[in-house]
Amino acid sequence: MSPEGTPGPPKLPGTMVYTYLGPEGTFTEAALLQVPGADEAVRIPSTSVTSALEMVRSGHANAAVVPIENSVEGGVSATLDAISIGQPLRILREILVPITFVLAVRPGIELDDVRRVSTHSHAWAQCRNWAEMNIPKAEYLPASSTAAAAVGLQDDSSGFDAAICSPLVASRLGLNVVARDIGDVSDAVTRFILISLPGLLPEPTGADKTTVVIPLPEDRPGALMEILDQFSTRGVNLSRIESRPTGAFLGDYFFSIDVDGHIFDARVADALKGLHRVSPELRFLGSYPRADHRRAHVLPHTSDPAFEAADQWLESLING
Amino acid sequence: MSPEGTPGPPKLPGTMVYTYLGPEGTFTEAALLQVPGADEAVRIPSTSVTSALEMVRSGHANAAVVPIENSVEGGVSATLDAISIGQPLRILREILVPITFVLAVRPGIELDDVRRVSTHSHAWAQCRNWAEMNIPKAEYLPASSTAAAAVGLQDDSSGFDAAICSPLVASRLGLNVVARDIGDVSDAVTRFILISLPGLLPEPTGADKTTVVIPLPEDRPGALMEILDQFSTRGVNLSRIESRPTGAFLGDYFFSIDVDGHIFDARVADALKGLHRVSPELRFLGSYPRADHRRAHVLPHTSDPAFEAADQWLESLING
Amino acid sequence: MSPEGTPGPPKLPGTMVYTYLGPEGTFTEAALLQVPGADEAVRIPSTSVTSALEMVRSGHANAAVVPIENSVEGGVSATLDAISIGQPLRILREILVPITFVLAVRPGIELDDVRRVSTHSHAWAQCRNWAEMNIPKAEYLPASSTAAAAVGLQDDSSGFDAAICSPLVASRLGLNVVARDIGDVSDAVTRFILISLPGLLPEPTGADKTTVVIPLPEDRPGALMEILDQFSTRGVNLSRIESRPTGAFLGDYFFSIDVDGHIFDARVADALKGLHRVSPELRFLGSYPRADHRRAHVLPHTSDPAFEAADQWLESLING
Amino acid sequence: MSPEGTPGPPKLPGTMVYTYLGPEGTFTEAALLQVPGADEAVRIPSTSVTSALEMVRSGHANAAVVPIENSVEGGVSATLDAISIGQPLRILREILVPITFVLAVRPGIELDDVRRVSTHSHAWAQCRNWAEMNIPKAEYLPASSTAAAAVGLQDDSSGFDAAICSPLVASRLGLNVVARDIGDVSDAVTRFILISLPGLLPEPTGADKTTVVIPLPEDRPGALMEILDQFSTRGVNLSRIESRPTGAFLGDYFFSIDVDGHIFDARVADALKGLHRVSPELRFLGSYPRADHRRAHVLPHTSDPAFEAADQWLESLING
Repeated sequence: MSPEGTPGPPKLPGTMVYTYLGPEGTFTEAALLQVPGADEAVRIPSTSVTSALEMVRSGHANAAVVPIENSVEGGVSATLDAISIGQPLRILREILVPITFVLAVRPGIELDDVRRVSTHSHAWAQCRNWAEMNIPKAEYLPASSTAAAAVGLQDDSSGFDAAICSPLVASRLGLNVVARDIGDVSDAVTRFILISLPGLLPEPTGADKTTVVIPLPEDRPGALMEILDQFSTRGVNLSRIESRPTGAFLGDYFFSIDVDGHIFDARVADALKGLHRVSPELRFLGSYPRADHRRAHVLPHTSDPAFEAADQWLESLING
Repeated sequence: MSPEGTPGPPKLPGTMVYTYLGPEGTFTEAALLQVPGADEAVRIPSTSVTSALEMVRSGHANAAVVPIENSVEGGVSATLDAISIGQPLRILREILVPITFVLAVRPGIELDDVRRVSTHSHAWAQCRNWAEMNIPKAEYLPASSTAAAAVGLQDDSSGFDAAICSPLVASRLGLNVVARDIGDVSDAVTRFILISLPGLLPEPTGADKTTVVIPLPEDRPGALMEILDQFSTRGVNLSRIESRPTGAFLGDYFFSIDVDGHIFDARVADALKGLHRVSPELRFLGSYPRADHRRAHVLPHTSDPAFEAADQWLESLING
Repeated sequence: MSPEGTPGPPKLPGTMVYTYLGPEGTFTEAALLQVPGADEAVRIPSTSVTSALEMVRSGHANAAVVPIENSVEGGVSATLDAISIGQPLRILREILVPITFVLAVRPGIELDDVRRVSTHSHAWAQCRNWAEMNIPKAEYLPASSTAAAAVGLQDDSSGFDAAICSPLVASRLGLNVVARDIGDVSDAVTRFILISLPGLLPEPTGADKTTVVIPLPEDRPGALMEILDQFSTRGVNLSRIESRPTGAFLGDYFFSIDVDGHIFDARVADALKGLHRVSPELRFLGSYPRADHRRAHVLPHTSDPAFEAADQWLESLING
Repeated sequence: MSPEGTPGPPKLPGTMVYTYLGPEGTFTEAALLQVPGADEAVRIPSTSVTSALEMVRSGHANAAVVPIENSVEGGVSATLDAISIGQPLRILREILVPITFVLAVRPGIELDDVRRVSTHSHAWAQCRNWAEMNIPKAEYLPASSTAAAAVGLQDDSSGFDAAICSPLVASRLGLNVVARDIGDVSDAVTRFILISLPGLLPEPTGADKTTVVIPLPEDRPGALMEILDQFSTRGVNLSRIESRPTGAFLGDYFFSIDVDGHIFDARVADALKGLHRVSPELRFLGSYPRADHRRAHVLPHTSDPAFEAADQWLESLING
């Protein structure tokens, strides 16, 4: 699968190569480090979600970690779109990372002295209230990541005297932290996903999630209801839905949906088959354990035994 | 299957025994005569729907013809209930019979002379307007069937001088008919069904009907919707629905439902499986050709190929 | 309203005229006697449901009592149809009557002697098992009512030696009862309704029922769901539904539906408005107290206060 | 409404003050310039969506223009969240802006010489393919806006030799453009909204949109369906839906929804009332003309006359 002349993933058995939305020290790397064995694996930062996924698609990485949603900012559009088109991918697991920010400053700088502060725009959005109260005179300089801002603090030419970043990268770089927990939402959490090529499906755990991408069959009243009906008829609970423009022009939509349950659960499999009939171009993005381990609530009449009993009953009718 | 000492159905190959709601000469016999081969088969009248079905259940008849609905009187409760409980039965076909009534009188009686007229109460209900206009002074005497009234006309002790009956029985008995087509609804039609023990299912024709009996799982808002949803989600059209009390006390219900399509149609089979999960005690009463040959309207996404494609898609996902 | 030359209802203030499906001594008269004041009112038996309703429509009776459903036989088609067409009528209340049958015989006749037994065909259907066990040799003669059979027992020319009738009529006529409680279903109950011309609506009691007749707008998949959706969206529970052919030909339907609640309940009124949009020819047949006094289960968000709050909220939006 | 000591909006009649997500020269300013009269009004750039809305809430601006969705990136989370909480705001109109990018360079630089290129990260995402083909060696530097990058090109200390920006700002600043139309999607369009305090609602045009924010009443299967049912039952078509975490923790959701139609349309008003009952904390964000002028498809039975007829019918029933 790796193109002629470019290096593939290491061939040593057991050696895994992971990529993630870099640079080093971001919350995304923190997410990756939650994956069992990742601390001993090869970890390659990518400069964008697209290039991280490209490494997976081309076989240069076994899997990638990218952000998918967070409790302050919602869906991360680039990821949603990148996994919805092109060569099929599969989500293997989701990872929750608590988001806490620190303010790191150059040596000798006090909080009151801060005039220019850098960080990623999303992090800035999440610390605005604190910043307006505590460093009201500071000008904001965008950075491509919180980690890039942290690194820039060690570079004399970077032009800013403070950075908002993760505790992890501040500690790794030995930065001077003058304020902790400066996010406006005290218990913010970001959701990341681990993505690979299609292969073995993760085993069901009873607390699983299934992600699908469903093009709207037609812009008619009721088409969305027809789609959602496939879930509700089988007692499958939705935990996320987003309509997304298909790209070329406004007005054509697809839906990105998370539901409770695993494709190995009969009710989910049956709903997927129903969706395939309504919108045959839908895409299955994976069934994987929920990070919060919350078990799906399954009504008796949508349980696996109920499905099996119904199958046997129908067969007995048809075979007389 | 036939109890000791009572005669079973004839053992000669090819000789069929039919029963029907009698007596001879009723519209029900006319319905039976529409069944191919019935004119050469043994035809035994039964005195009630229950006893006709009992002959089938006990093996003394191969099949029974009973009324199920008519265009003036609606559902025939006794039949609906009798096929919904007890030993399972199957509907093999439905038969439509045009309902036309004649007034037959004793020899020497003119229309203006009619003082007492007999017929079945349903037939009387269907000729009331005509009777009020044409024989306003006539008193009504109930009969157990239109044919019984016709026969009574030949019995001096029966006490009435006119009978409302079918043209068939009037002609068979050589009665004196003084008025024809006296029903208030000019194109009335009654629906009958042919019932046997479970066995081979009639082949699908593209214009089929499936009948089920579904106990309401619980008296909660939405239970009925949950049931009907199983049909609408698969694009299966209902052509009849009746809620029926379960018998012992008012308030507990089952539903008697006809839908377009055959159990061999994937969308119908899938809906039946869904119903079995929601209400496992449901009863399948048969898939059989529609008497009016009206083909079911099947949307592309609920056609058999769409179901097959969905099955294959899901299998490919699960098998990687 | 009463035609020239025919007597209208009594003009004395306070004197009510009731009619009912006769003759005297039937279960229907027993139902009427449950209506407060009916024992002192004028009670006129009618020979059919249609003629009973005609007396109301023409102003010759203030109200009529007719059967609408029973726990053994289900919907009474003639009543359903008669109130669904023609000049509008209103149901004022429903009445439940326990159905118990006795076997009355001519003087000198013992149970073993019974050779010919008469009763209404529905009553016969409800006593068949008992009859087969206890008077197996008896031939059945149909009567137009249980009361007519009872009366016939006092007439030497009637030709039968036993009658199945209500305890009431047997007692009134002083008949010789040889068996009691001979119905196959021990706690059978029949539902009757009291019908009048439109006028003041009965006050809501919290345990009410509303009856409507809804023509199916079109024979398309989903039309029935659209109708039922109007109820479920407002949390209105169905307690009865029947599809009924419209009369002229099979295939066109209307629905006869009972729901929990009163037209003065906001959720019911809102559902009725929704139904009117979907099927403008629908007919409101009345809101009236349930005979079983079972209160409707109303979810907070479909209560009157929730409707009022929503109305006020919308008004505040529109008026800025 | 404007706090002591801070300047309020100009008091001269007819003089409007607009703010927008700045700086000058962004696509957002281009959107504002489509608003009639905006070219002669006061136009104040804001540094964030939040501060733009704050200017409106505090009375320092009459209205604000902010991005809400675009055809490549989807929903703009900051805007969705900012208008969903805090003091109520209203959307007055939506504005579509075609998105085309140019590459501007410092004087003397050729395409092949470009080593460092700056732009907003979303613009960078939309020009990645072109950049990889045409300036593969160029390093990316994030800017807080495309206009900021353009301005930086005139500043020797900014450290980059090329900027991706709008044709408008390149032309205003007299920059050296070496490539045009470099976006990967040729007909990209971004949607912006004009926001003010609640006041007079825009008149319906027949091609309108209504935006609401609806908290999920409870995390139960079916709650989302209950919400969407309010629209489908009234034939109201959804054109956008997004589930959004409520902020504090993952798992609690609200929905941001656009539907076809105006609050003055009876079917939309009725759906809003239904939503208020299901989720009383919902927020109405406005009814306003669609930028694409596409008229809503209204079924006869959900038209204003159908609602009026239903209202009158119900009133006639209640008033006898």
